[in-house]
Amino acid sequence: MTEDSILDNINSPSDLKKLGLDELNKLSDEIREEIIYAVSQNGGHLASNLGVVELTVAIHSVFNTPEDKIVWDVGHQSYAHKILTGRREQLKTIRTEGGLSGFPKRNESEYDCFDTGHSSTSVSAAFGIACAGSINNEKNYTIAVIGDGALSGGLALEALNSVGKSKENLIVILNDNKMSISKNVGSMAKHLTRLRIRPSYLDAKIKVHSRLSNIPGIGKRLATMISRMKAWIRLNFFGHQKNMFEQLGFNYYGPLDGHDISQLQTAMRAAKRSRGPVMLHVCTKKGKGYEFAEKDPKIFHGISAFDIETGEPKSSSKGYSNVFGEFMCENAKNDKRLCAITAAMAMGTGLSDFAKKYKSRFYDVGIAEEHAVTFACGLAAGNVIPVFAVYSTFLQRSYDQILHDASLQKLHIVLAIDRAGIVGEDGETHQGIFDTAFLNTIPDVTIFSPSSFAELEHMLETAVYKTEGVAAVRYPRGGELYLPEDYTYDGEDYTFYGNKNCDNIIVTCGRLFSYACQAKEELMQQGIETCILKLNKIKPVSKSAVQKISGCKHCFFFEEGIKSGGVGQTFGLMLYESGFAGKYHLEAIEGYVQQAKVDSSLRKLGLDKEGMINTIEKALK
Amino acid sequence: MTEDSILDNINSPSDLKKLGLDELNKLSDEIREEIIYAVSQNGGHLASNLGVVELTVAIHSVFNTPEDKIVWDVGHQSYAHKILTGRREQLKTIRTEGGLSGFPKRNESEYDCFDTGHSSTSVSAAFGIACAGSINNEKNYTIAVIGDGALSGGLALEALNSVGKSKENLIVILNDNKMSISKNVGSMAKHLTRLRIRPSYLDAKIKVHSRLSNIPGIGKRLATMISRMKAWIRLNFFGHQKNMFEQLGFNYYGPLDGHDISQLQTAMRAAKRSRGPVMLHVCTKKGKGYEFAEKDPKIFHGISAFDIETGEPKSSSKGYSNVFGEFMCENAKNDKRLCAITAAMAMGTGLSDFAKKYKSRFYDVGIAEEHAVTFACGLAAGNVIPVFAVYSTFLQRSYDQILHDASLQKLHIVLAIDRAGIVGEDGETHQGIFDTAFLNTIPDVTIFSPSSFAELEHMLETAVYKTEGVAAVRYPRGGELYLPEDYTYDGEDYTFYGNKNCDNIIVTCGRLFSYACQAKEELMQQGIETCILKLNKIKPVSKSAVQKISGCKHCFFFEEGIKSGGVGQTFGLMLYESGFAGKYHLEAIEGYVQQAKVDSSLRKLGLDKEGMINTIEKALK
Repeated sequence: MTEDSILDNINSPSDLKKLGLDELNKLSDEIREEIIYAVSQNGGHLASNLGVVELTVAIHSVFNTPEDKIVWDVGHQSYAHKILTGRREQLKTIRTEGGLSGFPKRNESEYDCFDTGHSSTSVSAAFGIACAGSINNEKNYTIAVIGDGALSGGLALEALNSVGKSKENLIVILNDNKMSISKNVGSMAKHLTRLRIRPSYLDAKIKVHSRLSNIPGIGKRLATMISRMKAWIRLNFFGHQKNMFEQLGFNYYGPLDGHDISQLQTAMRAAKRSRGPVMLHVCTKKGKGYEFAEKDPKIFHGISAFDIETGEPKSSSKGYSNVFGEFMCENAKNDKRLCAITAAMAMGTGLSDFAKKYKSRFYDVGIAEEHAVTFACGLAAGNVIPVFAVYSTFLQRSYDQILHDASLQKLHIVLAIDRAGIVGEDGETHQGIFDTAFLNTIPDVTIFSPSSFAELEHMLETAVYKTEGVAAVRYPRGGELYLPEDYTYDGEDYTFYGNKNCDNIIVTCGRLFSYACQAKEELMQQGIETCILKLNKIKPVSKSAVQKISGCKHCFFFEEGIKSGGVGQTFGLMLYESGFAGKYHLEAIEGYVQQAKVDSSLRKLGLDKEGMINTIEKALK
Repeated sequence: MTEDSILDNINSPSDLKKLGLDELNKLSDEIREEIIYAVSQNGGHLASNLGVVELTVAIHSVFNTPEDKIVWDVGHQSYAHKILTGRREQLKTIRTEGGLSGFPKRNESEYDCFDTGHSSTSVSAAFGIACAGSINNEKNYTIAVIGDGALSGGLALEALNSVGKSKENLIVILNDNKMSISKNVGSMAKHLTRLRIRPSYLDAKIKVHSRLSNIPGIGKRLATMISRMKAWIRLNFFGHQKNMFEQLGFNYYGPLDGHDISQLQTAMRAAKRSRGPVMLHVCTKKGKGYEFAEKDPKIFHGISAFDIETGEPKSSSKGYSNVFGEFMCENAKNDKRLCAITAAMAMGTGLSDFAKKYKSRFYDVGIAEEHAVTFACGLAAGNVIPVFAVYSTFLQRSYDQILHDASLQKLHIVLAIDRAGIVGEDGETHQGIFDTAFLNTIPDVTIFSPSSFAELEHMLETAVYKTEGVAAVRYPRGGELYLPEDYTYDGEDYTFYGNKNCDNIIVTCGRLFSYACQAKEELMQQGIETCILKLNKIKPVSKSAVQKISGCKHCFFFEEGIKSGGVGQTFGLMLYESGFAGKYHLEAIEGYVQQAKVDSSLRKLGLDKEGMINTIEKALK
């Protein structure tokens, strides 16, 4: 920063109130620069953050945080907010172990009033905060900032329906960038497009209201009366001209230019004077101000570290998602029944090619994981084969649908569960550590867990073509790990690697198998013999596998998932019930896992090579 | 039925095609009579079924089932459909063990193309079926029949958003009776009211389209052209006059009189000729044709057997729900922070009085369990105490919200889980057998399980005022069961009843404790001594409780919930890990539980007194 930096003089949001428009615009440029630099170092969400710089500056210049509450939907667009609320210095640590979170966190700052991470929660949460404020007689404002993509989520739609009829002064800022993560889909998106191209009589509307309101005494009432009269005239002479949000009961202002701070401020001040829920429809450009991100916001949605000059990512290699995508394309060629569903994650899940090649059998339902599963059930009832590719953490949204619509009816749907296990820098809200446990509670679900690309392919084939009911394959973020040359996968439900009559059995699955193999080798050098029982199918657990090791002395189960309700618990109880008289050691995840590199998290959890060796050595001492 | 019964001559829906309007109306009356009689005998859903008789008759007279597919949302309004599709004789067995289901079931009839039970699934499922039909080049129609109440569910809203932009010929029939179960709430409901009072230019619109379409050759194209031209004129001269469904991309016809078969038929024929998704907005009267049900459809939504002449239920007694309601009212008096949330179940959960007395702290969010929980989290973040009263089976919808919005943030919300365990006649889709298992997978959730009204009261007090984070209390449908006089509840996490150094320990909780006490008594008479460890707090399981019985020879765990991931599994593994060298017998539920009286189901599952005695005797032989 040069000496005349404005940002250097911002210690808290209240400092923004002293700045003129030019200074706020200059401040926005400075913030933008800091964000680009930070993300280029640590990776993160770039395009969305660049899109809301002016919006964030405008909010903090008009509202009084932390008394006024801002709930950021998803929350990955809160970097400018963090910079302005005393966390500028820490920005360089964002998404690193022990550093700033990439999402709002209540325990990080009093300016973060609600933790987010998953989409579409903000309106519900903000409405709750507003209602609590009313109960407690507080006079502050509550603001939800939600993207148009998040509006395709049922939770947000339920909330709009619930808020619209209330009298709370909730302000919903619809950040309309025509994107969710991929290009936004659905008819809501179409409706927004129509609104965007509508001639805006907004400015005039706000200005009249604003001027009248400023007349002391009767001004506010007069403004309200006139606005009601206008509504009456509109209703009676022109019929139902309201847009969807007005029909839902919101005072609607928009569309607004999300990069015009002055316009935003005027609208926000009008919103503060309104009674009942308000929606500010703000149009922003994702990636604004960084050429490469403006051009391809999809790529710059969530990225790894990259080179600022060229926009090129610093590393990139083939991962499980690619293998999944290839499998789908390969099989769709000869099988017209094969369909793919994504909830706004075509690129992340590796389905971009499928989407192009098999357009009529590719369904992007928007951020709508509930609908995705029940829709898949409908497809299955219609005798085609739906594969829903989804990140583990987002599948949590579909619990009831998997149970009630798929499993109960014995419909054959396939869940391709990507990002299963530890995911790294996105932290608690994005770890894929619950899927096994919650699927474990649902009858007749089969879960496969590959340890290599080849295994993924084979297991997908089994899931799609040789399994009934709900078939899930869970695989991690990223690529393959080391596997020993003398290990071969035989397609069975489980595989022994080593001498299965050995006293010490390691049981594991998925990517942890690699660490287990390495641990086995090292332990052997110390004279400790172990054998690995690798579970390929983790639900149901094979009785014969359990039976075969029931005579061992020590059984070590390592699981990259939550302990309570996980496979390790099921396995342990089955083992004891089969007459096992040894000692069972279960190492799995307890509680939430904070942001850190995957390797580091696994190390801390005791689930990498060293962790396994430690556990085993300690037990055998 | 008299000799000139029309219904007697209906063997399949195709027979309806031969009937004139008068006959169809008479048929409707006959169907109505059969439904009233059947429900008065076995209980069931009355008001909703009486409301859709003409609608069902019209559908089956216009469409060709089973080639054309009807998906009934929730499905409890499918009685007329069942009567018309060859199941009239079996109607007297509805909701009884081995009898007809109260919901559509694929394995019951080829006319039931999708199982339902939970709300808001129909549009997603029907859309899937329609898309599969397109892939398979089938030329049939798919119809979703959804109530206005179900439209407040996020799943349905996600589906509308996804369907609206597609070109599938999906026909959504919106059955608008101004009710979900309680009176419908939310701004969608308001919007529907506005539509209902709008002058209907519908008839003319349909008739023109219909006549033009019948001109051979160019008719259909001409009709489409004219309708497009009209849309263009409307758009350009009158601005956005579309209602919400049109804005979402649907061809909208309505409002229609849902009891006027002729009008319904005309609209359905028009819908068949339309291209792209269609919404028929049909207004019906819940309870139509039975005075008592018309007057109070809430009472006659789902009821027990009743007297046809007086409309009085044959039995009624105080249940756990009442005790919960009283607790809430009692405490709200002195604690202004206490709030109650329901998802359209104020009456069922016992909150009717609270709703009247504490209106400003009572929130009926509509059928929107996801929003209910995240909204509760917002309230908690705003420093009030939200209690969400919900049936166990519907809480399945909130898994991600409990995890991601409540538990992760350590927000204090209370879940009052009603209808936990076996619920009886509603069958598989309504059993409350998964809550413990899925909550078990979520960190820092506390679950209490009372065995009497007094315990419920005490545990609610503990959950609301003495527990951090997510606190759940789960209690069954219905009332208290027998408890021995010498048993006293001391408010601890667990209670021993009997000699805890005994060889045979029964572990259980909730209502099963009553059966365990009875089993204990009877076994004693046979000279078999047992002791009962009753868990009052079932999550987390108390380590000291486990420790105290680790020396026993036989441990029998009885659980009214799913085995996989349930408390019994957790307990069993903890027991073995504490050095237990005896035998662990876990009796819990595996798979789904079909409709039957609660007693009968528990007997079959081996979870009543006899079941417990059998298990124990067998083990000790």
